[in-house]
Amino acid sequence: MRYKTCVSIAEKTPSKTKKVLKIALAKSDFVEVRLDFLKSTQVPETLEMIKKNLGRVVCTIRPKNEGGKFNGSEKERIAILKLIAEYNPFLLDVEFNTLKGNLVLTKYLKSTKTKLLVSWHDFKKTPSSVELKKKMSQMSEFSSNVKIVSTAKSTDDSTRMLELYSKKGKNNLISFAMGDYGRISRILCLYLGSPYTYASLGKAIAPGQFSVDEVNKITNLKK
Amino acid sequence: MRYKTCVSIAEKTPSKTKKVLKIALAKSDFVEVRLDFLKSTQVPETLEMIKKNLGRVVCTIRPKNEGGKFNGSEKERIAILKLIAEYNPFLLDVEFNTLKGNLVLTKYLKSTKTKLLVSWHDFKKTPSSVELKKKMSQMSEFSSNVKIVSTAKSTDDSTRMLELYSKKGKNNLISFAMGDYGRISRILCLYLGSPYTYASLGKAIAPGQFSVDEVNKITNLKK
Repeated sequence: MRYKTCVSIAEKTPSKTKKVLKIALAKSDFVEVRLDFLKSTQVPETLEMIKKNLGRVVCTIRPKNEGGKFNGSEKERIAILKLIAEYNPFLLDVEFNTLKGNLVLTKYLKSTKTKLLVSWHDFKKTPSSVELKKKMSQMSEFSSNVKIVSTAKSTDDSTRMLELYSKKGKNNLISFAMGDYGRISRILCLYLGSPYTYASLGKAIAPGQFSVDEVNKITNLKK
Repeated sequence: MRYKTCVSIAEKTPSKTKKVLKIALAKSDFVEVRLDFLKSTQVPETLEMIKKNLGRVVCTIRPKNEGGKFNGSEKERIAILKLIAEYNPFLLDVEFNTLKGNLVLTKYLKSTKTKLLVSWHDFKKTPSSVELKKKMSQMSEFSSNVKIVSTAKSTDDSTRMLELYSKKGKNNLISFAMGDYGRISRILCLYLGSPYTYASLGKAIAPGQFSVDEVNKITNLKK
């Protein structure tokens, strides 16, 4: 079995996004384009420029309170999310808190054919097993594509994130921990059924992230 | 498949060794007893005290120039190695450099029924693939139980230690990297065919080591 990767890219201009996306697609099954690193006004032209490749792209536009860089208003962000849906990318990553807090948006997105990836991140800690299971269950009401990410301060934190795979049911679950203690979970999640693991093209964007070359070397060990 | 562990213990008195060995054997398939943490004069009585359990013990008595604590002369250490062989433990760990430099000892040990684990450690770096393969080949002339351990300063160092498994032939290979970057190799070596992985009972003895509880939690994820 070949294990899959999703390279995260976060460029500041449309042309750089297009250029780096091409490089990333040559190395990785999927690419997450962090649209929040662009100026909000540049997102529409960026989508136009990369529309041919969106079938392998996870579109993400994180607000600041979810660890992102989006500089516009929430109203603008919602408008952009709706716009992305029209392009029908591989996945549209929308935060659990965004969907929960805006049922009109949720209803709208569900009316489109866009596949949602409902995501939730804890940048400070790893919740208890009970909390994680509850969160996954609540999230799966919005989409069967569920991404739960925490920050590990111990090996047990990292392992707890991986234990979720045994309770995922029919969901496509992406669950791992950030940070040095979480590094191992970014590989082991693949062996437990994650559809892909996030990786960097070169330097890590998220704490503890491997480069796509590193992931491929490691997963190629198991033939 | 159940993945196996070997807990390393390093106690300073015979009675503590006996006591901690019992605790470790209750948690782990095998236990490495680091006899070099004892006074050299205490080793014989320690062996007598734990002889009933030696069938699951890896006996190790590292000299200082191999990262150990042995406080006696090399002559004494050789005498102790010969003594251990009479107890026929699960494995007798002897450094590659010791065997290579003392063919009389090697011949003697081969004349006993003791199963040798020939070991080599690099506490500073990870050699190149070519060097590692050559080392494994040279080591396997002394025993089919081969332990090669390096220090990883990058993920690629760690991966290189794991690549050795594809070239191990009929050897029982234990190959992994120490240090933070090597942590992942201490788990993945099991998936690649290592007979066991070294772990600590509580606090890590070697850099990057997991506790036996941590290893068991991680390896239990894969059912």
